[in-house]
Amino acid sequence: MTIQVLNGPNLGRLGLREPEKYGTTTYAQLVELLEATGRDLGVEVQVRQTDDEAEMLGWVHAAADAGDPVVLNPAAWSHTSIALRDALAQLTAGLVEVHITNIHQREEFRHHSYVSAVADGVIAGFGVLGYVLALQWIAQR
Amino acid sequence: MTIQVLNGPNLGRLGLREPEKYGTTTYAQLVELLEATGRDLGVEVQVRQTDDEAEMLGWVHAAADAGDPVVLNPAAWSHTSIALRDALAQLTAGLVEVHITNIHQREEFRHHSYVSAVADGVIAGFGVLGYVLALQWIAQR
Amino acid sequence: MTIQVLNGPNLGRLGLREPEKYGTTTYAQLVELLEATGRDLGVEVQVRQTDDEAEMLGWVHAAADAGDPVVLNPAAWSHTSIALRDALAQLTAGLVEVHITNIHQREEFRHHSYVSAVADGVIAGFGVLGYVLALQWIAQR
Amino acid sequence: MTIQVLNGPNLGRLGLREPEKYGTTTYAQLVELLEATGRDLGVEVQVRQTDDEAEMLGWVHAAADAGDPVVLNPAAWSHTSIALRDALAQLTAGLVEVHITNIHQREEFRHHSYVSAVADGVIAGFGVLGYVLALQWIAQR
Amino acid sequence: MTIQVLNGPNLGRLGLREPEKYGTTTYAQLVELLEATGRDLGVEVQVRQTDDEAEMLGWVHAAADAGDPVVLNPAAWSHTSIALRDALAQLTAGLVEVHITNIHQREEFRHHSYVSAVADGVIAGFGVLGYVLALQWIAQR
Amino acid sequence: MTIQVLNGPNLGRLGLREPEKYGTTTYAQLVELLEATGRDLGVEVQVRQTDDEAEMLGWVHAAADAGDPVVLNPAAWSHTSIALRDALAQLTAGLVEVHITNIHQREEFRHHSYVSAVADGVIAGFGVLGYVLALQWIAQR
Amino acid sequence: MTIQVLNGPNLGRLGLREPEKYGTTTYAQLVELLEATGRDLGVEVQVRQTDDEAEMLGWVHAAADAGDPVVLNPAAWSHTSIALRDALAQLTAGLVEVHITNIHQREEFRHHSYVSAVADGVIAGFGVLGYVLALQWIAQR
Amino acid sequence: MTIQVLNGPNLGRLGLREPEKYGTTTYAQLVELLEATGRDLGVEVQVRQTDDEAEMLGWVHAAADAGDPVVLNPAAWSHTSIALRDALAQLTAGLVEVHITNIHQREEFRHHSYVSAVADGVIAGFGVLGYVLALQWIAQR
Amino acid sequence: MTIQVLNGPNLGRLGLREPEKYGTTTYAQLVELLEATGRDLGVEVQVRQTDDEAEMLGWVHAAADAGDPVVLNPAAWSHTSIALRDALAQLTAGLVEVHITNIHQREEFRHHSYVSAVADGVIAGFGVLGYVLALQWIAQR
Amino acid sequence: MTIQVLNGPNLGRLGLREPEKYGTTTYAQLVELLEATGRDLGVEVQVRQTDDEAEMLGWVHAAADAGDPVVLNPAAWSHTSIALRDALAQLTAGLVEVHITNIHQREEFRHHSYVSAVADGVIAGFGVLGYVLALQWIAQR
Amino acid sequence: MTIQVLNGPNLGRLGLREPEKYGTTTYAQLVELLEATGRDLGVEVQVRQTDDEAEMLGWVHAAADAGDPVVLNPAAWSHTSIALRDALAQLTAGLVEVHITNIHQREEFRHHSYVSAVADGVIAGFGVLGYVLALQWIAQR
Amino acid sequence: MTIQVLNGPNLGRLGLREPEKYGTTTYAQLVELLEATGRDLGVEVQVRQTDDEAEMLGWVHAAADAGDPVVLNPAAWSHTSIALRDALAQLTAGLVEVHITNIHQREEFRHHSYVSAVADGVIAGFGVLGYVLALQWIAQR
Repeated sequence: MTIQVLNGPNLGRLGLREPEKYGTTTYAQLVELLEATGRDLGVEVQVRQTDDEAEMLGWVHAAADAGDPVVLNPAAWSHTSIALRDALAQLTAGLVEVHITNIHQREEFRHHSYVSAVADGVIAGFGVLGYVLALQWIAQR
Repeated sequence: MTIQVLNGPNLGRLGLREPEKYGTTTYAQLVELLEATGRDLGVEVQVRQTDDEAEMLGWVHAAADAGDPVVLNPAAWSHTSIALRDALAQLTAGLVEVHITNIHQREEFRHHSYVSAVADGVIAGFGVLGYVLALQWIAQR
Repeated sequence: MTIQVLNGPNLGRLGLREPEKYGTTTYAQLVELLEATGRDLGVEVQVRQTDDEAEMLGWVHAAADAGDPVVLNPAAWSHTSIALRDALAQLTAGLVEVHITNIHQREEFRHHSYVSAVADGVIAGFGVLGYVLALQWIAQR
Repeated sequence: MTIQVLNGPNLGRLGLREPEKYGTTTYAQLVELLEATGRDLGVEVQVRQTDDEAEMLGWVHAAADAGDPVVLNPAAWSHTSIALRDALAQLTAGLVEVHITNIHQREEFRHHSYVSAVADGVIAGFGVLGYVLALQWIAQR
Repeated sequence: MTIQVLNGPNLGRLGLREPEKYGTTTYAQLVELLEATGRDLGVEVQVRQTDDEAEMLGWVHAAADAGDPVVLNPAAWSHTSIALRDALAQLTAGLVEVHITNIHQREEFRHHSYVSAVADGVIAGFGVLGYVLALQWIAQR
Repeated sequence: MTIQVLNGPNLGRLGLREPEKYGTTTYAQLVELLEATGRDLGVEVQVRQTDDEAEMLGWVHAAADAGDPVVLNPAAWSHTSIALRDALAQLTAGLVEVHITNIHQREEFRHHSYVSAVADGVIAGFGVLGYVLALQWIAQR
Repeated sequence: MTIQVLNGPNLGRLGLREPEKYGTTTYAQLVELLEATGRDLGVEVQVRQTDDEAEMLGWVHAAADAGDPVVLNPAAWSHTSIALRDALAQLTAGLVEVHITNIHQREEFRHHSYVSAVADGVIAGFGVLGYVLALQWIAQR
Repeated sequence: MTIQVLNGPNLGRLGLREPEKYGTTTYAQLVELLEATGRDLGVEVQVRQTDDEAEMLGWVHAAADAGDPVVLNPAAWSHTSIALRDALAQLTAGLVEVHITNIHQREEFRHHSYVSAVADGVIAGFGVLGYVLALQWIAQR
Repeated sequence: MTIQVLNGPNLGRLGLREPEKYGTTTYAQLVELLEATGRDLGVEVQVRQTDDEAEMLGWVHAAADAGDPVVLNPAAWSHTSIALRDALAQLTAGLVEVHITNIHQREEFRHHSYVSAVADGVIAGFGVLGYVLALQWIAQR
Repeated sequence: MTIQVLNGPNLGRLGLREPEKYGTTTYAQLVELLEATGRDLGVEVQVRQTDDEAEMLGWVHAAADAGDPVVLNPAAWSHTSIALRDALAQLTAGLVEVHITNIHQREEFRHHSYVSAVADGVIAGFGVLGYVLALQWIAQR
Repeated sequence: MTIQVLNGPNLGRLGLREPEKYGTTTYAQLVELLEATGRDLGVEVQVRQTDDEAEMLGWVHAAADAGDPVVLNPAAWSHTSIALRDALAQLTAGLVEVHITNIHQREEFRHHSYVSAVADGVIAGFGVLGYVLALQWIAQR
Repeated sequence: MTIQVLNGPNLGRLGLREPEKYGTTTYAQLVELLEATGRDLGVEVQVRQTDDEAEMLGWVHAAADAGDPVVLNPAAWSHTSIALRDALAQLTAGLVEVHITNIHQREEFRHHSYVSAVADGVIAGFGVLGYVLALQWIAQR
């Protein structure tokens, strides 16, 4: 079992894009942090990011086939991608939705996530620590 | 003239993904079924699937250029993709929208399709036989 | 088993009423076409039309008692009659909803059908051939 | 040519039902008034009322066949009957929609009429004189 | 004075139609139960059912003329018939609206009743005992 | 008593502006027609038009003081001017709202009129004959 | 088993507060009436009222523990208290929602009750007799 | 500094109330778990529950005065209490909103929380482990 | 510094127009009252009224240039004039919005005021005394 | 007669809570100010605050019994408490609703107050001077 | 042919009113800039501004008669004036709608313009250079 | 500095797709036109088109890194892609949104653009000249 940490569009720009909202941790640092957390927790963690929805769907299909749990930051796709939701509905080994910012304090259109209805749980607003909490929960189950 | 049967996101997972909704026929079996139906009807049928919206747009552009009729299962893109609708508006040789499930019995957000307004007709809820009906209609015209 | 083809209000005017929308096939020709289709398919088909909702409800009650499948063009009642929906909910031998026009290209109030939620499948926009497709599906099951 | 004055549900109760809203003129007096108006204007006028939607649809179909103009008080069906609207859409010799009360001063659900979109003109709030104005307009054309 | 118990569309199918929702008491048993209840309460009770809105309007007009109180289960017409509401607005001897099921636990479109605004009271969710409660209230006034 | 025929913005352009909607009768011809109608009916008629809301309010105030009935075509102000509605609420000698076109067949925002709620009656869709009907009604009362 | 009759905010003011809406029976008289009804029906009845939501929640928790059926007039909390609904969802021995007035004839915001979705049945508009009907139903089950 | 873990209405019923939704852990076990977690993390934790909104407001006021961080499960008040939101807006030492269930998979009215807009972060759907994650985050900051 | 008391459309009709709503004080008496109040408070007060929006905009522009505080009764323009709001946004010396009636008890469309968002404060429902309160507040600052 | 000045939730925190919105005057200073204003105006004033809705309802019931006018700052309950509105509807000696801030410039959900519909007048945005204006108005009547 | 540059309410205040939104260019400077641009482009340009809607309507009527293209900044009237839209619908020589600010970044009510539906094109957010672009486009056609 | 002219889905079909809406200029001609315009203005211009959202996001990220201004025709993505909006929010050297058609005259769903809120300005309805105006504005700044 590998925990798949999947990141949606623009998250490769972490640390560069609107740091007052998303923080100064870069995407590379995030990957390191999560790999280190995985080592601490004794679980295998694979961290990936894509701006390409088809690639993301492929990763989700693969996780479904492998029975891997998924930690997903769907970013903007949360609010627009029913295709992603449909793919995620196949997962059986756990799905945690993570948002770096507290989406409920932002524009109205960010308050609804198509993903939440098929996730086990949702974590929002804790910055990059939100991913860490997600890994801890999966490890603690 | 070739009838283009185009399938949108996650349909490659047919038979694997939520079979209680989408049935147990696999995507490979669907392709076979439609090719057989084409032979029975004496029409050429090309069946393709993609999770990549840009690839789908390319196929629609090509069908427009070739004057091919299209049978389309837009899946989740039905409800979200205006780009797909804009591409489809070019077609002149017929467009049938097919849904495996009866989308009117599912979540509210699946009740509206951007595709319907540019399709000749819509078939929903007949499982994979819906594609067959679509081919029969194009052949019977 | 007899397939009941039931037609709602104003459909007796087929061919006379707004032919640019509903086509030039008359109601009598539609009956003939469907009876011929039934003979081709080897199934018994009874085609009826009424402007009287109570008569329609009675036909549906009878079909429920007889275990007959129903092909229904509810016409304007699609959008307004919960009584019809409630009657149809009793059917167990299959229900196909047919619309001659593509209702999704017409006024907003024609986009919602109370019938769809209790139908097995929906066919819209194929003109009178829609009924033929419906019969074919019932015969093919 | 006969001007068909058609009255919808509950209008047979005129003078009895909520006279503070609909006035004290009885339905019989209305018929007399309109026949007298017809004689004054030199036009033939037939006045009918029904609580049965199917009967009303039949009258409209007949008026369409005969090329008769119609003065219609659709009463409650204004707000609920798409079947009636569909039938009326066939008329080619003129359609005037009459309401005894000013429906815009009543409940919200009486503000929208499905009939208005297919009528030539609408008259509301003038009591039974509204019918007289309608006849005058048809005669004056 | 006779208490008119009037039943709307599909209620003649009681006991047959969706018994998990409407219960297993048949319509004939309901009539017996209410007649028996009337005898116990010392009031005359007439129980009728129709799928024909025009017939229902006629019964309401007659009750208005006779000064009879009405117990009405409008069934699906609750949500769609303004004509029925307009007829009911004439009643002066009491109107109780009864629903066998708790309509507030069902589809959104069943939550609003045009009848409620002209009824004295509303009873919903008590199965066929709801009618009995309605008779008791009229008798107790 | 003088019947005040008041016309709102752009109506001075009658015959020039969008004649396919508003007809080819010019504003000067309308004035003549209504003065002639007044002579026929034996009533005094004053016809005025303004693009200036303050001037219109002044005319309404004067009509209120004089006890004059008003025939008003509020044109675009129907849908936007609460100030006009508030002024009109003072009138006690009758107010008829006239629209040349059938506003219910045009854009959604033309379906609601602030004026209707304070008018005795509304006439829409009869072209300039609508004014004549309004004068006839006032004269016939 | 004791039938718990629980009354929400302001109901202690019965007979004093807006008697044209709520009637002239005082709260003390209501208690007496319901105790007498209980004696007649041979059931134990406890009648309580509170303006304090926490106290009400406590009573509901106790009824859940004791397996007591509840007759509840939630008054204004019907429309605003999800906490009350959540507590009521525990009840297994029956819940009847009673409203003294016909809430469907009052302000729009009184048309929705959070309680109805977890109640067995709803009685509205019968004045204080509504409670009596509720007790009769519980006793008759 | 003490981390205040505050629980809203009905949460004292944990383990008893709808265990298929909220789980079988009792409230007493939750308290133990969080105190143990606090000891593990080396932070002081005070766990309290109330059904009384005024008491909850008082606790929040006290936390504001003391500069204590708050972990809050507002339960039903999430969706209805602006008073609670206003009190929480004073907090400066951190606020985590916790929901045991994934509120996005439940009724529409549970999708909006007044609290989220003033919380640092939100955790939903992880059962009682959500509180543990919240404590971990506060400790890790 | 002069306090500008500006009155919008129809307010010149005060005492004449719907006195059951607006009271019997005439506009002339209002002017006197406010001038007297100004003298009592030792502030200069200029009271004006117009039905002409352009004139009102001019007065607001002048007040902005002069640094005068404004007491404004925008009457019907409250709900419709964004132009007025834009002009008022320039004011820096204080703006009080006054309504004679309690607009929250009237039609829905009077509940929203474009002016409120740029006013310091709002006073509604106190009759002509509302202006006096506004002057007192400006004087007391 | 005593003027009851009643303050809703969190107002005891005045001066402490979000002073940039609510000002720096403390609640104790507000009480002093209003008592001093009472003395100046020669009226008795009682100032109270509670976070407990039941206590507030009790005070309103008492004011209704005593015939006391009420100045109420309902704070957050303005937008959520129908129970409070129902209690206030009993008052006959005057009710003024006061808001320290201009609620129309804040979040959408603060724009509607259930209290306004039963208040004589509303004052918003004048800081603590709003209470003084309210007292002046009651004294001046 | 003269290009009519027409400016709506408050635009005479350019440079004075909210310069952080509208910039520091004064209205006089704008006129100069546009006249200079006209000279550069070799077209005649007439620049006018009014706060008076009737005057604006007159200018539009005149442009329609003269066959002049119009560059219009409707300012606040964009969102409220159907009268202006109706006048503009007459224009045949081109209509460009200009907004100094990007109205899509401001309040919701500024996102809809009644003018856009009858304009050839819309330019928003470029400050006073927007007018220059409009002139360039007209000259380049 | 290079001005990036980026074109979204289906724009490669310019001149082929619905020329009655989008004009007959081909995409190749557009590229030429804009390069020529760039040469005239003395600025470097790079014109690209993609149907692939991920590719578009990459181009925007690159423009952000390079500090290039962007002229963007987002086509259908305007109305659906929050991912694109999030990427664009990084740009600091200017962003102009261009639409060939006047989107305000088309379907309702084309009236809202997620891009507008992060663009400096918007140009719609000028055909391919809209791009030229955009380049002129960037050059003129």
